Amino acid sequence: MTRPFTAVVPPGWNPRYTFSAAVRAGNLLFISGMTAADENGELVGPGDIVRQTEYIFEKMGRVLAHAGASFENVVETTEYFTTLDGYAKTASVRRKVFGDGPYPAATGVQVAGLIRPGALIEIKATALIG
Amino acid sequence: MTRPFTAVVPPGWNPRYTFSAAVRAGNLLFISGMTAADENGELVGPGDIVRQTEYIFEKMGRVLAHAGASFENVVETTEYFTTLDGYAKTASVRRKVFGDGPYPAATGVQVAGLIRPGALIEIKATALIG
Amino acid sequence: MTRPFTAVVPPGWNPRYTFSAAVRAGNLLFISGMTAADENGELVGPGDIVRQTEYIFEKMGRVLAHAGASFENVVETTEYFTTLDGYAKTASVRRKVFGDGPYPAATGVQVAGLIRPGALIEIKATALIG
Repeated sequence: MTRPFTAVVPPGWNPRYTFSAAVRAGNLLFISGMTAADENGELVGPGDIVRQTEYIFEKMGRVLAHAGASFENVVETTEYFTTLDGYAKTASVRRKVFGDGPYPAATGVQVAGLIRPGALIEIKATALIG
Repeated sequence: MTRPFTAVVPPGWNPRYTFSAAVRAGNLLFISGMTAADENGELVGPGDIVRQTEYIFEKMGRVLAHAGASFENVVETTEYFTTLDGYAKTASVRRKVFGDGPYPAATGVQVAGLIRPGALIEIKATALIG
Repeated sequence: MTRPFTAVVPPGWNPRYTFSAAVRAGNLLFISGMTAADENGELVGPGDIVRQTEYIFEKMGRVLAHAGASFENVVETTEYFTTLDGYAKTASVRRKVFGDGPYPAATGVQVAGLIRPGALIEIKATALIG
């Protein structure tokens, strides 16, 4: 099919996935929910929500860069986590990622489960480009 | 009230609902979360997440058509499901719906419950039009 | 950092938060998920989902006003609630807030928990401005 949008497909993206890592639609970039799975599908930071959050933002940074953007472009995040334990500590990761702000809008809720076994947090984001 | 957007109201929409099936805002179409309830409020595919997913996309296709769009315009989906059982099989439905891609961005999380009794999955979507 | 967006920071916003109350990105306003916590961090309407919903919309109205908008501009809401008890009654709040419509698109799911202790509902929203 033809599409009115551009899919962002980073190197190593599994061609069997039925979703794109991100989609650029006009000046918006919709980034799919990400967990801390590495390029081999192994979970980084098992049991450690702060490390998982760090790794997710590393991956997100690469997707943003692939779309010609950076964390400065992120306007909204939604965080889904499976435990409240340690969640408050992930704010320190946001400070490293987004500096002194201004910060994106954000929503975070505890869910009943995530698809990736062992994932404690999944983050989706929207960015504004150009 | 006057509105800067256009509500998409498909035939048979319950006038008592306090939300629209979809809203067109500029070149974006925001589609409300949908479960596999038919026009009489009966759940299609009880206990069968693949059938429910099929039916949801049938309904979504009608809302998209009503807005002058199609699945080619969908830039993002969010899926909320109540069980991981059979969830992986819903990828086959996405292949039928979105063909060989490029695919929308997507996020999927397991929630504690859905409003519609018996619903195993609810899907919201955003589309880019024009 | 410089940003391609404008953060909406209402009076009394906690400067330690790593998110903005809302972000204006082009003609879209992304409003962070809100619970019924007042300016002192106290939960309004403990145990009462209808009262919590009312208070959230009061807060959201102030954020919208701060961005030069009103409820007429809201194109989409996502509601996360921790219980189905009384949820149906929150429709009456939406009728007060959005009048006779046209209504925003909406999605509502039951989550496993919310960050704010005692919160029964959290609402995020997107608005179209100008």
